[in-house]
Amino acid sequence: MGSLYGENIKLTIFGQSHSPAIGMTLEGIPAGEEINTGTLQNFLNRRAPGNNEFSTPRKEDDVPEFISGFIDGHTCGVPLTAIIRNRDTRSGDYSELKNVPRPGHADYTGAIKYGGYQDYAGGGHFSGRLTAPLCVAGGICIQLLEKEGIRIISRIASIGSVEDKGPLEVSTSEKAFPVVDDECGQKMQALINETKEKGDSVGGTVQCAVLGLPVGLGDPMFGGMENRIAQIVFGIPAVKGLEFGKGFASTLLKGSENNDPFFADGGRIMTSGNNCGGILGGITNGMPLIFRVAVKPTPSISLPQQSADIRTGTSAILTVKGRHDPCIVPRAVPCVEAAAAIAVYDALLGRRKEITNGSAGLQENN
Amino acid sequence: MGSLYGENIKLTIFGQSHSPAIGMTLEGIPAGEEINTGTLQNFLNRRAPGNNEFSTPRKEDDVPEFISGFIDGHTCGVPLTAIIRNRDTRSGDYSELKNVPRPGHADYTGAIKYGGYQDYAGGGHFSGRLTAPLCVAGGICIQLLEKEGIRIISRIASIGSVEDKGPLEVSTSEKAFPVVDDECGQKMQALINETKEKGDSVGGTVQCAVLGLPVGLGDPMFGGMENRIAQIVFGIPAVKGLEFGKGFASTLLKGSENNDPFFADGGRIMTSGNNCGGILGGITNGMPLIFRVAVKPTPSISLPQQSADIRTGTSAILTVKGRHDPCIVPRAVPCVEAAAAIAVYDALLGRRKEITNGSAGLQENN
Amino acid sequence: MGSLYGENIKLTIFGQSHSPAIGMTLEGIPAGEEINTGTLQNFLNRRAPGNNEFSTPRKEDDVPEFISGFIDGHTCGVPLTAIIRNRDTRSGDYSELKNVPRPGHADYTGAIKYGGYQDYAGGGHFSGRLTAPLCVAGGICIQLLEKEGIRIISRIASIGSVEDKGPLEVSTSEKAFPVVDDECGQKMQALINETKEKGDSVGGTVQCAVLGLPVGLGDPMFGGMENRIAQIVFGIPAVKGLEFGKGFASTLLKGSENNDPFFADGGRIMTSGNNCGGILGGITNGMPLIFRVAVKPTPSISLPQQSADIRTGTSAILTVKGRHDPCIVPRAVPCVEAAAAIAVYDALLGRRKEITNGSAGLQENN
Amino acid sequence: MGSLYGENIKLTIFGQSHSPAIGMTLEGIPAGEEINTGTLQNFLNRRAPGNNEFSTPRKEDDVPEFISGFIDGHTCGVPLTAIIRNRDTRSGDYSELKNVPRPGHADYTGAIKYGGYQDYAGGGHFSGRLTAPLCVAGGICIQLLEKEGIRIISRIASIGSVEDKGPLEVSTSEKAFPVVDDECGQKMQALINETKEKGDSVGGTVQCAVLGLPVGLGDPMFGGMENRIAQIVFGIPAVKGLEFGKGFASTLLKGSENNDPFFADGGRIMTSGNNCGGILGGITNGMPLIFRVAVKPTPSISLPQQSADIRTGTSAILTVKGRHDPCIVPRAVPCVEAAAAIAVYDALLGRRKEITNGSAGLQENN
Repeated sequence: MGSLYGENIKLTIFGQSHSPAIGMTLEGIPAGEEINTGTLQNFLNRRAPGNNEFSTPRKEDDVPEFISGFIDGHTCGVPLTAIIRNRDTRSGDYSELKNVPRPGHADYTGAIKYGGYQDYAGGGHFSGRLTAPLCVAGGICIQLLEKEGIRIISRIASIGSVEDKGPLEVSTSEKAFPVVDDECGQKMQALINETKEKGDSVGGTVQCAVLGLPVGLGDPMFGGMENRIAQIVFGIPAVKGLEFGKGFASTLLKGSENNDPFFADGGRIMTSGNNCGGILGGITNGMPLIFRVAVKPTPSISLPQQSADIRTGTSAILTVKGRHDPCIVPRAVPCVEAAAAIAVYDALLGRRKEITNGSAGLQENN
Repeated sequence: MGSLYGENIKLTIFGQSHSPAIGMTLEGIPAGEEINTGTLQNFLNRRAPGNNEFSTPRKEDDVPEFISGFIDGHTCGVPLTAIIRNRDTRSGDYSELKNVPRPGHADYTGAIKYGGYQDYAGGGHFSGRLTAPLCVAGGICIQLLEKEGIRIISRIASIGSVEDKGPLEVSTSEKAFPVVDDECGQKMQALINETKEKGDSVGGTVQCAVLGLPVGLGDPMFGGMENRIAQIVFGIPAVKGLEFGKGFASTLLKGSENNDPFFADGGRIMTSGNNCGGILGGITNGMPLIFRVAVKPTPSISLPQQSADIRTGTSAILTVKGRHDPCIVPRAVPCVEAAAAIAVYDALLGRRKEITNGSAGLQENN
Repeated sequence: MGSLYGENIKLTIFGQSHSPAIGMTLEGIPAGEEINTGTLQNFLNRRAPGNNEFSTPRKEDDVPEFISGFIDGHTCGVPLTAIIRNRDTRSGDYSELKNVPRPGHADYTGAIKYGGYQDYAGGGHFSGRLTAPLCVAGGICIQLLEKEGIRIISRIASIGSVEDKGPLEVSTSEKAFPVVDDECGQKMQALINETKEKGDSVGGTVQCAVLGLPVGLGDPMFGGMENRIAQIVFGIPAVKGLEFGKGFASTLLKGSENNDPFFADGGRIMTSGNNCGGILGGITNGMPLIFRVAVKPTPSISLPQQSADIRTGTSAILTVKGRHDPCIVPRAVPCVEAAAAIAVYDALLGRRKEITNGSAGLQENN
Repeated sequence: MGSLYGENIKLTIFGQSHSPAIGMTLEGIPAGEEINTGTLQNFLNRRAPGNNEFSTPRKEDDVPEFISGFIDGHTCGVPLTAIIRNRDTRSGDYSELKNVPRPGHADYTGAIKYGGYQDYAGGGHFSGRLTAPLCVAGGICIQLLEKEGIRIISRIASIGSVEDKGPLEVSTSEKAFPVVDDECGQKMQALINETKEKGDSVGGTVQCAVLGLPVGLGDPMFGGMENRIAQIVFGIPAVKGLEFGKGFASTLLKGSENNDPFFADGGRIMTSGNNCGGILGGITNGMPLIFRVAVKPTPSISLPQQSADIRTGTSAILTVKGRHDPCIVPRAVPCVEAAAAIAVYDALLGRRKEITNGSAGLQENN
């Protein structure tokens, strides 16, 4: 039951790489929310294939059709469903993969899980193509969050061992290659091109920050912001690691170094560092929520690879055909933003239930 | 709604550090499962406070009382509830913290979230003490998994910059300091002692492996094994990072290096490396499921720290009283095992729903 | 969050009466299940409008398009999504209803709930048209249950005060007017026609039986078969009552009369009556699961009715235009079967999780 | 997974009739809500056994101990857990029932479901005793609703064929025998006594009304108020039927009779009848929410009954020992109120998520 996410909103993602359509249903968005479809399309275009030299040449216009929940530019309160037709499918490219799984892919695990009835074409439901409906849902949540003064920014933090420089403070979404330091970006692109020419692929990391958050989003224990973001971010194919704030590097610090001191700024409580990534006890503390995601190198490469035939149980050499990205990291950037937006919006709705007349008590910033 | 976990089992954790009791309810365990309470107690003792020189001197015997679901050593099919009484509470130690939050702790976020009605004593529901009921649930799941031939092992992988050596292949659970290489363990302990003497704290990482898994556990998208494990592991206080298999280091590899080649071994399909950590497309591939967790340095330190009074909005210097661990990592080890066991057992039950007479098709290893 | 149902399957229903399409997503159906689309269409046709003289003349062919989860006649394990395009929409008929709600309808409650942003055309998401995707999901579950030897039968038990005669023992699904006693059916049809001519409407009851159930489906407390069936059956528009077995009439009996005695038949345990409707403690006892549903008279009638303008707060006389059924009961029959099938199939999957090697114990008699 | 209820709050009920304790966890109640434990105890006493001549002589003081989530008379935002110790248990009374199930009880279905590992003593988790924690949760929700101006009243509507007279307009909770017309109450009590003397039992109906509701609670489809109330009310043992407003009797009316006309009263929209029981399209319309519940005669009677030995597969005569109510209806009254309060409070929290700055539009009563 993997394709359902959320506590206060319920997101369902459906479709396969080569099924008639892919899509999403988002239930729980209040009625009367305006959604700008042009802005949404701009966001989707950042993820769409065929946009730049590093992505698969598969062409899909990826224009969602809203078939439920959307009238005259506004939500009407009932489930919001959008579908995207799959057009440029070449299932023939994948026929070999039914029996000889691609290393690093879900071909083998899907075949066993689904007893041979899996949709192997193009990776089926496991395909990166399914991040398109994720971005539809996320693009909507981004618009809803912006009305609350919450913004999500992100960047490619590294490709292979080439790291971006400088802090992530402003959006990189207008850039064709979303980094803070364009010189670093040039080096990353050179690395991707070099790798592509060898028929190989390369991974990287994406950093994301959520700005303008109120204090108090998230819940203790399994409902912390880390848990909520993790549950959705690991749903993006190829993500194998996640850390918040200082993350793994915090283990090299002493408590006295890692703790972010509080201070009062005109009555408002802030921290003078942000090693905790804006989350304490699972709950937002009003500072930027920051996390970093590890994206493994695209498993689909054109070099011959060692595999095995799962029906005959014999070894086999596989050369993957089809069209693939030498580096999925640039296209993962909007997906990470989408995932963050969905998780944060879900937590924001949950927070509304808590604020009662009864709890007259303590409030943020006074 | 953070204290509820699971899809096929439902785990609820309740209680606060200084409430009358803490406990857990686990629904969905089939009837007739034998649970050895002695084995469970041994597991709980690995986490219990006061056991060694690095942990808080707070003494709790941590013996769970089963008040529901358990008869004559077996589950009876209905919700399994166990409670642990809190005995050695010294709430007075915490009175200052109501207004002046400890840096790195949930004191501030809890105060705002709960409008001043939070239980601040001992960290309330955010306390590491709440990992005791997590370990009750996890210790039960470990026993249930062992009947299916699935074992969970783990170790301290690093303390500060001191790393354990050698691969994690056998259990370290019998050791007082759970590392593979005891010489490394000595260095880690020296570092902890040295840090303790300075009134400071230190973090580290825990590595965990799940052995003997069938192929096919987990679901695509948000129900992947990564997502499931992440959602529970980030519920352990102080966890700020998580990676599967090669994780962040995979971003430094090429696809041709990172992909784990398949081979057939007497008809069984295996991989010749395990960079993917036993998970492809969110689904177990039959190889060991491996992950690593970053545990930040304990935020409670005895050094004076900069904080602020959240009622007056003025700065304040805080010296934390109370009893605290200079390094939480050793006690986090069984918690990580518990979390993994709960996530895996939940996925295992989910897998049972899929195996039908209808799906005559392909099976693992034949 | 009303449009999501299920514990082991997750059913989402989306769309409005006059939106571009309506549809459903069903997650959790195992891979490799064959679905006969012809059989499914026959089932859908029983609910479709325009089939007989009592139903709305709105014409919709109601052929679902499977856009996810379905390949070569089999499920492939991922979310199963089907959509049905809305074609014969006449939104103009409904413009008056935006401000003057139809008595007995959701027009008013929807307007307030959704703050004026509701889709009022044709009842929006509240329309009986949304039972089409319910029947898609139910028709699929019926096929899956039949493979397990479980069959669902039903009938019109009454229209107004005209009751069907004889016990419900065989399917009435082949009949144009699904009753056991056709003479009673003639009287019912006469009553409907007579009511229709007056511009009025009439209600009735539907009885449903699930045959061939194993012992042990359902859970105690809120997961009983009654609870599960109730949660879905009250989702069919116009349903205002539900009873299991003897239901309300059992309150007129003594315990000695109402208790169904057990007896052993060649080792198999059965009951000699079925006042409990096949459910004891929420759990199936192996006898037919029987329930009865009250369907109120269709609220849309062509007689002028007293209403009020919700914007001006003044009284108004409403004459409902549009096309409506004088009696919704015949079309509710397949909907009730669909609802029962979904609830039972969900419980059946849940039962699979319980049957373990460990629970060697007692089994249902074989 | 039956013992978990709710969407915006999560209620878990645990324990068995003769386990060390029974209890409940309620997650999702905002922090800072005052709970008057004296008022709660008064409510619990209405349900407690041993209070009058019709109920089982089993004596339990039924005083809940709050072990989590409750400090200084207020909720603190984390899971609220209360336990009640079982004291007056006489498990020996039930030993025969392990193999020879009581007709009308869950003994047989529980035995098969749990493979012989069920807790048969006193009905285990299926016991009416488990309504005590339900009433703890419900009693809390009643207090929370009252702060919002929402009140729940109910009465015994019938015992056997003796009906209460007059409309349910004020609370009957102060009465020892909760009916509107005390003369009818006398006849009901005479019938119960007469039945008790014969060693038999009798059923009845309970009517419940929720007053002071805002418009807009509940959701379409499976989240309607009918669905929500049904899912919890059928969790009360012995409930076999449920109807809202006119319910089954509405099927005897024409649409023109059954539709409740709207009218405007000083700008406020109301209905001039309430056949719909205050619910249209699953959503509250601001009129009283009214429903009626059928409670079957207590299955435990002292008359000898026909049963069967489920291990030997032979017939057997059973004479039930133990202590039982000749009529459970009076004690069901507070349970029905509790169930209604939990369902309504859950829906009320859900409604908070919908009311946004964005939805500037239409509001109730202006």
